[in-house]
Amino acid sequence: MDMTSLALLTDLYQLTMAYGYWKQYKADEQSVFHLFFRSNPFRGGYVVAAGLQPALELIRDFRFQSDDVAFLTTIAGNDGKRIFEPAFLDYLSRLELSVDVDAIPEGTVVFPHEPLLRVRGSILQCQLLETALLNIVNFQSLIATKASRIAMAAKGDSVLEFGLRRAQGIDGALAASRAAYIGGCSATSNVLAGKLFGIPVRGTHAHSWVMSFDSELESFSAYAEAMPNNCVFLVDTYDTIEGVRHAIAVGQHLKNTGHRMVGIRLDSGDLANLSIEARKLLDAAGFEDAVIVASNDLDERLIQSLKQQGAAIAVWGVGTKLVTAYDQPALGGVYKLGAIQSNNGTWIPKIKLSEQLIKTSTPGILQVRRYFDDESDATADVILNELEPLPSPCKVIDPFDPSLFREMPDSMAFEDLLKPAIRNGKVLSEFPSLDSIRTRTSQQLQKFQSSVLRFDNPQKYFVGLEQGLHDLKSSLVREARQTKQATEEP
Amino acid sequence: MDMTSLALLTDLYQLTMAYGYWKQYKADEQSVFHLFFRSNPFRGGYVVAAGLQPALELIRDFRFQSDDVAFLTTIAGNDGKRIFEPAFLDYLSRLELSVDVDAIPEGTVVFPHEPLLRVRGSILQCQLLETALLNIVNFQSLIATKASRIAMAAKGDSVLEFGLRRAQGIDGALAASRAAYIGGCSATSNVLAGKLFGIPVRGTHAHSWVMSFDSELESFSAYAEAMPNNCVFLVDTYDTIEGVRHAIAVGQHLKNTGHRMVGIRLDSGDLANLSIEARKLLDAAGFEDAVIVASNDLDERLIQSLKQQGAAIAVWGVGTKLVTAYDQPALGGVYKLGAIQSNNGTWIPKIKLSEQLIKTSTPGILQVRRYFDDESDATADVILNELEPLPSPCKVIDPFDPSLFREMPDSMAFEDLLKPAIRNGKVLSEFPSLDSIRTRTSQQLQKFQSSVLRFDNPQKYFVGLEQGLHDLKSSLVREARQTKQATEEP
Repeated sequence: MDMTSLALLTDLYQLTMAYGYWKQYKADEQSVFHLFFRSNPFRGGYVVAAGLQPALELIRDFRFQSDDVAFLTTIAGNDGKRIFEPAFLDYLSRLELSVDVDAIPEGTVVFPHEPLLRVRGSILQCQLLETALLNIVNFQSLIATKASRIAMAAKGDSVLEFGLRRAQGIDGALAASRAAYIGGCSATSNVLAGKLFGIPVRGTHAHSWVMSFDSELESFSAYAEAMPNNCVFLVDTYDTIEGVRHAIAVGQHLKNTGHRMVGIRLDSGDLANLSIEARKLLDAAGFEDAVIVASNDLDERLIQSLKQQGAAIAVWGVGTKLVTAYDQPALGGVYKLGAIQSNNGTWIPKIKLSEQLIKTSTPGILQVRRYFDDESDATADVILNELEPLPSPCKVIDPFDPSLFREMPDSMAFEDLLKPAIRNGKVLSEFPSLDSIRTRTSQQLQKFQSSVLRFDNPQKYFVGLEQGLHDLKSSLVREARQTKQATEEP
Repeated sequence: MDMTSLALLTDLYQLTMAYGYWKQYKADEQSVFHLFFRSNPFRGGYVVAAGLQPALELIRDFRFQSDDVAFLTTIAGNDGKRIFEPAFLDYLSRLELSVDVDAIPEGTVVFPHEPLLRVRGSILQCQLLETALLNIVNFQSLIATKASRIAMAAKGDSVLEFGLRRAQGIDGALAASRAAYIGGCSATSNVLAGKLFGIPVRGTHAHSWVMSFDSELESFSAYAEAMPNNCVFLVDTYDTIEGVRHAIAVGQHLKNTGHRMVGIRLDSGDLANLSIEARKLLDAAGFEDAVIVASNDLDERLIQSLKQQGAAIAVWGVGTKLVTAYDQPALGGVYKLGAIQSNNGTWIPKIKLSEQLIKTSTPGILQVRRYFDDESDATADVILNELEPLPSPCKVIDPFDPSLFREMPDSMAFEDLLKPAIRNGKVLSEFPSLDSIRTRTSQQLQKFQSSVLRFDNPQKYFVGLEQGLHDLKSSLVREARQTKQATEEP
């Protein structure tokens, strides 16, 4: 699969709209779009932003190649005729993106309605990027969030991502490995993810290794011969406790010959009881330092439960439930128009109505300001409109209950989360290493109260609209509804 | 992302096992592996096999490139030393696959425990392929199955796949578009999927198009100017019924100028009532041929319910719920060793025990034989062991209730589902077109009773083990359990 050109990784309607803008001489109209999600996944209280680097790389490398354009010439409409006229396709083939992008860095803890990306530029260009940006950021943020929950449940134990075989396609696996590492996993089984992203790779052996020998003991001995210092024996092919005994026998031989058995892996059965039994056997045989790795459809809730049962598991192998975000396999991120520049240069804030308040978009050119208390803990986020001057002190309204508001004193420390990432189509700075992003995730999570992070009924972290923005949104909603009512009169 | 080499798209343990086999001079030991799943997804009664072509292409193109090998040299174990010795890496860099693959064609309806792929060859090579084959076949079969259910609910209406923005990564989207088409969708919004796979692409416009103009009416007129014969107007940006009126006004203008409005799209609200209202307005205005497209988190159950409510929807846009297989985002396919050839050339059937009967693997070199009644309807599938001669008539045992059995008379028509696909690493024949696979799916579904295909409490289609194979499996289970008990005596 040749992935060098991703310009066509988009919904057709982005191209038909682009064509429409071009035909209307609106292609260069300046606009601002915001990418955000509306609710936290997994009934949780937060999201870990991820996917920014591949999103920025896609923008950086965006060009319609000649075979892309050749394909577009073949697209026909309902009348059987070609949709796009040659002059437009010529325009696309020469198109170089000149957008500006501001983005919240990967590994940042974020909340519903906060723009993770703000894309500013010609409406045609902004629109062409929508679908691919959503694809990348939605999925990686979803998986980074899931991984952070699983790592939290593991309370400092290593979590290994083992999901390749059940992931949703090749990149469903690769992108998941990357995001899982950002979220807190310490390694992956996916060798290609190791090569592409520099993630540590880990692995042991499978049941088939054991089955390919005449006996389990023989198979362990053979494995030890090949990897005398890297043996984690999978002990449940025939009978788990018997398997532990065989591992101990081979571990003894390794010890006698100056090597060291790393541990054993359990992949079925009652992991709590089996791990406790295995731990006893290992300790009694003098293998106190041998680790017990467990896998088998684990997720954050199962790990939490196994911990509560006193399971003697030190390393958690997590696959399907992590890389597919099994209990909620999509983050519903959207990309909405916030403002458009009129011919005279003034920006016109834009709104999309909905019968559901939560689906009504926020107008303006938005920024997210996070306030911190004296202990540097995050206390509230404020969505601001950069088109308006900020009053001081800043008054903040809960958009879903306008009777709730806060005043942020001028003296309070804050950070603006959206940072310049691309100007005029060019990436501004080097991408942070994946390790530094992973560290950021863990530092970020420490800035929030555990009540916001917990799995069940998390406390809602305060995210408000700055009062001026709230008033603007309310008046645009009123205006739109009035227009609607006026047109509804017979 | 350069995807030209996928040899490292595997779990590390496949490579450590390969290294172990190589060290043990077992690398060339001949083996047979079967890829199968253990239960139907979505609480349904069947699976549509998909993903074979990309799986075979992966095998055809499999080579460790120099940068793959360079990466493998860097992998260190727990002792900080490199895991793989240079002679082994040299072996890998020269490795050309010589496996034989038999496979069930894409678009075939299949059932739990039936091998979709049978891979025969050196144990090292078979093992290296495991993870990538599972990744590809698991996901595409899952999505083809989901799409077939959605198409079934739509009862002949067109279903468009709109999932790119919420799919699990880039290939999570592309592979889903391919599999959704196989399962019965008639087009995708994903332009790159159209380019790569030849799937028809479709699209209309977004809310942002409407918002970028001063009024909805103006936006529809502008769109009609660009695409006078391909307008499907999205009518719910501000108020749906008002939007329909605007569409009709512009449709009238199109009609007067010799063009034709294709239809409208609803993306929110009560789709049943709104579509009925919209239909009335369209018909009253003389647009009986304008189609109503609907989207908004649709799946097979919602479509079924909307149909029951008499919704006037002719085209269904389905996204998130389809491309992520939202209610069950992974098919739990596995890849298990069935037999190994001993030094003297005889094949030794192999079994993996489990405390759960459903997880005990089936030994042998397996084939799936499907029997048909006089109306060419499928009546039962039989899993056979090609290592043993087949008695006649063939007696078949239900593996989960051995008291249930059937006798298949010699006169009964049958088809062996696993067909030769690769011999000695070479693909045997040209791949079928995606359209012919899609046709196969629909023909296959007609061969089964609706009770097997229905969504709720589907009837279990009979899949049995040929008696000799059943007896072999039972005796291997007994043998393994006896060994286990013997070793458990103090």
